[in-house]
Amino acid sequence: MSRTPATARLMDGSGLARRLVDETAARAADLTRRTGTQPCLATVLVGEDPASVTYVKMKRARCEKAGIRSRHLELPATTTTAELVAVLADLSGDPDVHGILLQHPVGPGIDERAAFEAIAPEKDVDGVTFSSFATMGFGLPGFVSCTPGGIMRLLDAYDVDPAGKRAVVVGRSAILGKPAGLMLLARNATVTYCHSYTADLSAAVREADILVAAVGRPRFIKGEDIKPGAVVIDAGYNPGNVGDVDFDTAATRASLITPVPGGVGPMTIAVLLSQTVDAAERQLA
Amino acid sequence: MSRTPATARLMDGSGLARRLVDETAARAADLTRRTGTQPCLATVLVGEDPASVTYVKMKRARCEKAGIRSRHLELPATTTTAELVAVLADLSGDPDVHGILLQHPVGPGIDERAAFEAIAPEKDVDGVTFSSFATMGFGLPGFVSCTPGGIMRLLDAYDVDPAGKRAVVVGRSAILGKPAGLMLLARNATVTYCHSYTADLSAAVREADILVAAVGRPRFIKGEDIKPGAVVIDAGYNPGNVGDVDFDTAATRASLITPVPGGVGPMTIAVLLSQTVDAAERQLA
Repeated sequence: MSRTPATARLMDGSGLARRLVDETAARAADLTRRTGTQPCLATVLVGEDPASVTYVKMKRARCEKAGIRSRHLELPATTTTAELVAVLADLSGDPDVHGILLQHPVGPGIDERAAFEAIAPEKDVDGVTFSSFATMGFGLPGFVSCTPGGIMRLLDAYDVDPAGKRAVVVGRSAILGKPAGLMLLARNATVTYCHSYTADLSAAVREADILVAAVGRPRFIKGEDIKPGAVVIDAGYNPGNVGDVDFDTAATRASLITPVPGGVGPMTIAVLLSQTVDAAERQLA
Repeated sequence: MSRTPATARLMDGSGLARRLVDETAARAADLTRRTGTQPCLATVLVGEDPASVTYVKMKRARCEKAGIRSRHLELPATTTTAELVAVLADLSGDPDVHGILLQHPVGPGIDERAAFEAIAPEKDVDGVTFSSFATMGFGLPGFVSCTPGGIMRLLDAYDVDPAGKRAVVVGRSAILGKPAGLMLLARNATVTYCHSYTADLSAAVREADILVAAVGRPRFIKGEDIKPGAVVIDAGYNPGNVGDVDFDTAATRASLITPVPGGVGPMTIAVLLSQTVDAAERQLA
């Protein structure tokens, strides 16, 4: 039996991210020229977790390429919550810093929430504070979590209007699934949240006009559950460059689908950079 | 043709609210005896909207009956956002006030969100701040919006465990539908938000093991759409004592259903009083 060919159009996150970064770099250059001040992102790393070290390094390199200054702080793994809060409060009050990124997870022994809440909302370019969560929830202006923000930009770039559509979000993490659902709701989708307790995941997925997979389990979403014509956003990124959706089968049914890699992934840093320049523009205005 | 008899058990919100208020009054009395300080709720009313005047009066009377002091501030309709923010910031800093209720809507010309955000989260016993919304969203300790908080207490009182069930919330207001969905999600329900843009409301309602109707339109939810055995929570309260659900037909299909009046309604003030004593207990500890 021959394999059914993919019919879905690929959503090119790499290309969209590149355009967003270019646009962001142009805004950063313009702002620097007009004000004499370069936008600055403070990156805070606690401990020496290899993945975190790599992520921060990557983010800083991307900042530099986009004309955004980064100020890097490395704190030992023995840092207390109070010490970390003090560092973040300092950065929040520092007029030379426009955005703050606390690389997380921060490791055991630190109250991550207390640390996040020490970030001033107007510098929360990573969208991790209560305030940012609430503005996402109410559809008010504010910074968004970067990955869901990237997902919404992908939908917009491919003219997918969520209004009135059934959107199903699989996963409910604080920085991905939960805000993604709220942002889709703010854009008038009928939103369903699924997760590990969901009794019949296949039934729920089959309803989705827009599916956001954000569970972090390789090929967890079966391709045959994809509704014909659905838009499939795969925010998973598992070992071996495998997403949360069984891509090969899903691509024979969906109308639009994000590849892994090259779909949602590249959007995250692009949104971080863009929001950093947004923050700088407001603070330097 | 004879009418099918109601089979659903009624969820007695009036009785549950009475027990919660009794329990709250006992806690208030105990706290007053132990600390010499009576719990105090500040109520702030802007303008003279008759419904708002009535609501505040009712809340204050209920406070008094429960042994909670209320401090009432009436501001003219011409109050500016800055003036209201200043009043709320004062109350937030006043050690004699343990909870703050800003009666809303505050009327045009005032930035309601700015006013809410002037309420200290630890005194936000009405659950209206960004911080309270986020703690509800993350399932963290904090004050909840009173009506959804009442809904969760009703579910608990009738041993309805939302985990793994499909919960459908119709309506997405900031103080009712949206937080109700987040609280059900935090209790591990598979949650669907429906609203005015939902394409096929009947289809979505038919999936609900737990239905929360919060639209404010009389008999908007058709009884024949209720899944047999479902738990029906009607948070609507429309002219003529009519809820958002077609009660007569729904009651022949549901396993549990809230009457209107006497279901969700009485729980709202009871939760407000209970949270006021919670706040006082923490602040006087």
